[in-house]
Amino acid sequence: MNGVTIDFQSHIPYYYQLIEILKQHIKEGVWAPGDQIPSELELCDSYNVSRTVVRQALRELETDNFIVRRKGKGTFVAKPKINEGLIQKLTGFYSDMVEKGLKPVTKVLYQEILSATPQIAKYLDVSVGTEIIDIERLRFIHDEPIQLVTTYIPLHLAPELINVDLSDRSLYDYLETEYNLQIARGTRFIEAVLATEEEAKLLEIDEGDPLIMLDSVSYSETGQVIEYYHALHRGDRSRFQVDLIRLNK
Amino acid sequence: MNGVTIDFQSHIPYYYQLIEILKQHIKEGVWAPGDQIPSELELCDSYNVSRTVVRQALRELETDNFIVRRKGKGTFVAKPKINEGLIQKLTGFYSDMVEKGLKPVTKVLYQEILSATPQIAKYLDVSVGTEIIDIERLRFIHDEPIQLVTTYIPLHLAPELINVDLSDRSLYDYLETEYNLQIARGTRFIEAVLATEEEAKLLEIDEGDPLIMLDSVSYSETGQVIEYYHALHRGDRSRFQVDLIRLNK
Repeated sequence: MNGVTIDFQSHIPYYYQLIEILKQHIKEGVWAPGDQIPSELELCDSYNVSRTVVRQALRELETDNFIVRRKGKGTFVAKPKINEGLIQKLTGFYSDMVEKGLKPVTKVLYQEILSATPQIAKYLDVSVGTEIIDIERLRFIHDEPIQLVTTYIPLHLAPELINVDLSDRSLYDYLETEYNLQIARGTRFIEAVLATEEEAKLLEIDEGDPLIMLDSVSYSETGQVIEYYHALHRGDRSRFQVDLIRLNK
Repeated sequence: MNGVTIDFQSHIPYYYQLIEILKQHIKEGVWAPGDQIPSELELCDSYNVSRTVVRQALRELETDNFIVRRKGKGTFVAKPKINEGLIQKLTGFYSDMVEKGLKPVTKVLYQEILSATPQIAKYLDVSVGTEIIDIERLRFIHDEPIQLVTTYIPLHLAPELINVDLSDRSLYDYLETEYNLQIARGTRFIEAVLATEEEAKLLEIDEGDPLIMLDSVSYSETGQVIEYYHALHRGDRSRFQVDLIRLNK
């Protein structure tokens, strides 16, 4: 370590002093984002404090997103989470990221026509077997895959969509420009799940890492279902915000 | 199995037939919520289908919340997730659950006064060292712990709160009745994280299971910060809903 130590005469709690020391290491780049930091025991030794003190310090640093703990692997300096912004906004990922000055890159994994399974039919409010355009896209920010999203749209709503390259184009913009389909409202369901082997491989994380799962249905002004999507966002890189106002007393 | 088999002459895809058979088992109670179901290989054997077919069927059943897969443990019949309702609502957990006809049980783990750390001070918009009431509660539905929430409220806003038993009382109701503090708006941040050993023990899950983490700041009509809370919801039992309307255009 770089010579900074706990002042055992100070009235400032040890864990709090330790937090400040570790934050300083991170800010000064002694440890870079993604670097593994010393173990609890090593920190106890280096700073001559108890495991309880180290644990409390690491816990606060984790809550405040300075570090991430990975089960069975150790503790790492966090990469900043991308605030994916207001989940209430009905703009798409593409324009959200452009607005933030980030360049989104999209890899279309497949784009096909399928017959609606009961589950898809239920979400899209169509009959089982209806032809559906099914698009799977992997989205990157700063060359890192962040989001895996599968979108389902009834074929009859946008028959030419099957031939459109969505690699660098907003789906919502396309639907609005070409088919006058404008999304007016939506419902999203949010869950926390663990990455399967396949999902982990695509998102370049480990199996069992946390994901935010979003299931979303979008409607036109008249209440017609335009799309259903199922999205998985890397838990280590994603943070959503919801703004609330009191609806009733 | 109970004699229902795949019809290999049918035009209905095998995986889809398998989904229907497995759903039937769940509906008829052959497998109860929480029961482990046979492994992929056992299902291949029982129904004489390929592993690809079994995997696709299990995947759809998982997406549709009929089953949950637990890494290294197997596949289990899902207990229904509690729709924790509109995340936009500013009512508290207590009244939300009562409204659904569920009886929430709260165990207060501790209730103490502490000096605001920099992190808490930042959220509450007070000076570091300001006296804060810190309440940790574990919340149960149907005798199952669902949510672990730590609430921070500046002591001067509600000095008597430190002596109030919140085991069967709404915090928001108390603040409004006794101190005329009404929450008018809030901001919530949503992340997906893995349970630590300690969190897992309290929530009766395994270390490394997924959690929805909510960080929330609530404001009065005049913009004063009333509370900050940090909540962990069991991923296997929680689902949040967000309703959206187009804000611009």
